[in-house]
Amino acid sequence: MSGFSLDKYNELVSRLEELSRLGAVMGVLHWDQEVILPKGAVESRAKQMAAMAGIMHEKGTHAELGELLETLHSCGASAYDPLQWCNISEAKRDYDLSVKIPKDLVQELAELGARGHQVWAQAREDNKFSDFAPTLKRFVELKTRWAQCAFPELSPYDANIDIFERGMTVDKLTPIFDRVKTELKILIQRIKENPRQSDESFMQGSFSVEKQTALGKRISTAMGFSFDHGRMDVSVHPFCGGAGADDVRITTRYREDNFVESLYAVIHETGHGLYEQGRMQEHRDLPVSESLTMGIHESQSLFWERMIAQGKPFCDAFLPTIQEFFPENLGGVAPQSFFEAVNACSPSLIRVEADEATYPLHVILRFEIEKGLFDGSLAVDDLPEVWNQKMEDYLGIRPPSDTLGVLQDVHWSGGAFGYFPSYTLGAMYACQFYAALLKELPEIESEISKGNLAPVKAWLNEKIHSKGRLLSPDELIQNVTSSPLDPEVFIDYLKRKYEALYGLK
Amino acid sequence: MSGFSLDKYNELVSRLEELSRLGAVMGVLHWDQEVILPKGAVESRAKQMAAMAGIMHEKGTHAELGELLETLHSCGASAYDPLQWCNISEAKRDYDLSVKIPKDLVQELAELGARGHQVWAQAREDNKFSDFAPTLKRFVELKTRWAQCAFPELSPYDANIDIFERGMTVDKLTPIFDRVKTELKILIQRIKENPRQSDESFMQGSFSVEKQTALGKRISTAMGFSFDHGRMDVSVHPFCGGAGADDVRITTRYREDNFVESLYAVIHETGHGLYEQGRMQEHRDLPVSESLTMGIHESQSLFWERMIAQGKPFCDAFLPTIQEFFPENLGGVAPQSFFEAVNACSPSLIRVEADEATYPLHVILRFEIEKGLFDGSLAVDDLPEVWNQKMEDYLGIRPPSDTLGVLQDVHWSGGAFGYFPSYTLGAMYACQFYAALLKELPEIESEISKGNLAPVKAWLNEKIHSKGRLLSPDELIQNVTSSPLDPEVFIDYLKRKYEALYGLK
Repeated sequence: MSGFSLDKYNELVSRLEELSRLGAVMGVLHWDQEVILPKGAVESRAKQMAAMAGIMHEKGTHAELGELLETLHSCGASAYDPLQWCNISEAKRDYDLSVKIPKDLVQELAELGARGHQVWAQAREDNKFSDFAPTLKRFVELKTRWAQCAFPELSPYDANIDIFERGMTVDKLTPIFDRVKTELKILIQRIKENPRQSDESFMQGSFSVEKQTALGKRISTAMGFSFDHGRMDVSVHPFCGGAGADDVRITTRYREDNFVESLYAVIHETGHGLYEQGRMQEHRDLPVSESLTMGIHESQSLFWERMIAQGKPFCDAFLPTIQEFFPENLGGVAPQSFFEAVNACSPSLIRVEADEATYPLHVILRFEIEKGLFDGSLAVDDLPEVWNQKMEDYLGIRPPSDTLGVLQDVHWSGGAFGYFPSYTLGAMYACQFYAALLKELPEIESEISKGNLAPVKAWLNEKIHSKGRLLSPDELIQNVTSSPLDPEVFIDYLKRKYEALYGLK
Repeated sequence: MSGFSLDKYNELVSRLEELSRLGAVMGVLHWDQEVILPKGAVESRAKQMAAMAGIMHEKGTHAELGELLETLHSCGASAYDPLQWCNISEAKRDYDLSVKIPKDLVQELAELGARGHQVWAQAREDNKFSDFAPTLKRFVELKTRWAQCAFPELSPYDANIDIFERGMTVDKLTPIFDRVKTELKILIQRIKENPRQSDESFMQGSFSVEKQTALGKRISTAMGFSFDHGRMDVSVHPFCGGAGADDVRITTRYREDNFVESLYAVIHETGHGLYEQGRMQEHRDLPVSESLTMGIHESQSLFWERMIAQGKPFCDAFLPTIQEFFPENLGGVAPQSFFEAVNACSPSLIRVEADEATYPLHVILRFEIEKGLFDGSLAVDDLPEVWNQKMEDYLGIRPPSDTLGVLQDVHWSGGAFGYFPSYTLGAMYACQFYAALLKELPEIESEISKGNLAPVKAWLNEKIHSKGRLLSPDELIQNVTSSPLDPEVFIDYLKRKYEALYGLK
């Protein structure tokens, strides 16, 4: 870089670092809102967050930032090292995206989002989809218009997907999801016909919140989460937030009658948290060090939750720890019984409660519906019937109400279309990552069964977390697994696992 | 207001509300830092707060804000209602103050503040004043220069005082503090010569943090603190912060061997908190509704801590509550004994641990030193000797080390000169407010002794909290007490109280 360019680049760095730090402040405000905000402060907090959002928009769309990016970007990738170029191109993408959306559309989307949540919550409570339908229709219209502004080269639904999983499209997803759907429908049917009879009575009981908290922190620490650079608290819905790599805040929730739900939520959120804590040390407040996509983020949480913690080696290693906390409930339980219990498979109505094998069908159903809404082949008013029919086709159960059906998820109430595929993409990525790990470190399951999770974390840190945004998702998968995204790995894994668990065939 | 002016005024309101909300965000960040920040996040949090401070400075010194204020202010008070005029003139004062200070001075002060704290902490640990002396000298120079820019019409020390207690000056304070000093020196001598012999063994023991927390919340609630609009947590130094009237966050700290310290810290901070929660309902994010001065704020905490909670009626009412929490320690204790115990008077080295009667002498000592530093009659290098000599003259004890003497307070390490007088001004205001309350509601002590604190809070809400910045401190005292600030009220109160307590004369 010439001296001139270096000055310009350094100016860009200052601007981006400022934006990143404001984003971190928003992270603190959001965490605070979900975890500890007094209930009488909801309205004043909304105003504070709106002020922050306004300033971030002002800074993020500032003409001087645009000119700077234009100048730096016009020199081309070869003028910079890959990290610098990544910062420039990522920032340019964000900037272009922000300035391409007309202000009235931004405002209408924000307003509809704020109102939409209330309308949806009420409709869900009243089990009345028709009350939510107008909001949903309007969101499809606005998000179509948004897509045409943001990514005129993409179809509207592809544009919505791209925000969460860059480079992913309906054309790529459809054959993948069709394969998964076909195979899982068969697998689930086989499981259903061959119900496992195992004793899971030890999962019932009374589990003090205090002990669950201590157990969660113990397991999270064993996974490598640094409580010097993060926290664990309680919120209505578990999440991973905070203010950057040094201040990663995970949450869970507790039920006194069920410790597994909370424990696996901790493990899931710790997976997200390790991604954040594992960022590259340099470029901390710059785009290149940020997490890649929703799907890759989800791959990290699911890697730990499913590939590791629902695996037999983990159960072998950590059941004694769990027994130490809850001897009266789990004292005499064998690792195999615990392994079977945390992997029970059974079709159910609610996505967030679904198991590993049925979960993808919940996602595919939503993907197909969103696709239909955006290509015009499906009318909003027909959603409840379509939903219920698909539930029957894919999972063999029919929701008795819209509350337990089409109205169950929060996503559409905020206009978040294209988000659902990330969950199953994450599961598929996780599965391929685990296969690569096994290949590279053949002794890893033996280490896990001894409770040594450090090599797992170190491997993820090196292969994924520290890569930031230097690679595209496709490139990352290829680099880590020597293969592109491949549904067969996922299908094969589920088949083998459940055939063994349920003694199928 | 004409339509033109109204538009301008509304634009001002938007800008001031934005600034206020950013200030509230800083309040959350500060609280978070003191209460729950992971230790590895200290540096990244500092960067986030610096980014916020930069934006607030940018917004607060924006030329468009200055022009707007100039236009609105030039119409004069008669063009507005008193609340609008207060917003305009307060904002103009803040703006003028910000733009009058050269950027290099702002930066040097910020840098010295950041470094100064470390230098002071190390010097205190090493008991080596000479290590801190250069920082202190530089601060006096910088704060003198600052004063000449900010308030060229005031003497440098008056300018420093004005920031914390508007309108207060050395000329006003000196005779007041001289009177207090003269009388308290005599009173303390009389107490010393007549040592009370009472049984305070019940103050020793083991008091669980859990019970102390519950007791603190009970008493805070009885005082009228709304936990729907606030929180109570733990920090190294108790404080009252948060994010505005709807989100007031007080903290305390706990010692297992002493519950009184924590309880009275809760009461003190609740007093601050009630001021914040008691703001006028309108103009919430505007200057007019803000608390008036440091001295007035301190008057509210001390009103509750000393005038109410160290009074006999409160002890009568709430000792049974305390006994309910700690029956094994306080079971057989009489209210009179508890009253005597929480009012024990004895000269000590450390200001923050001082009792009601000796505290003002700690403050006056610091006032006299600061005065000397700014008028040039006192050299920084002579401070330890001057300090120790004054301690001996006023309190009859000589610090064995600078750590327990001149290095004990954090204030000077950040260049906060002129702050100390607020503590004793607060105590004097509180005393006069209490006298006014007694006069207006002659039955109030009987109500307090029944545990009914609601009329006290209501009276403070009406007379002080809801007045915001509509009056100057002088006007407020005059309005509430029908008298100006008068040290005789304070002196008389202390004399009567301690003569009775110690059976003097």
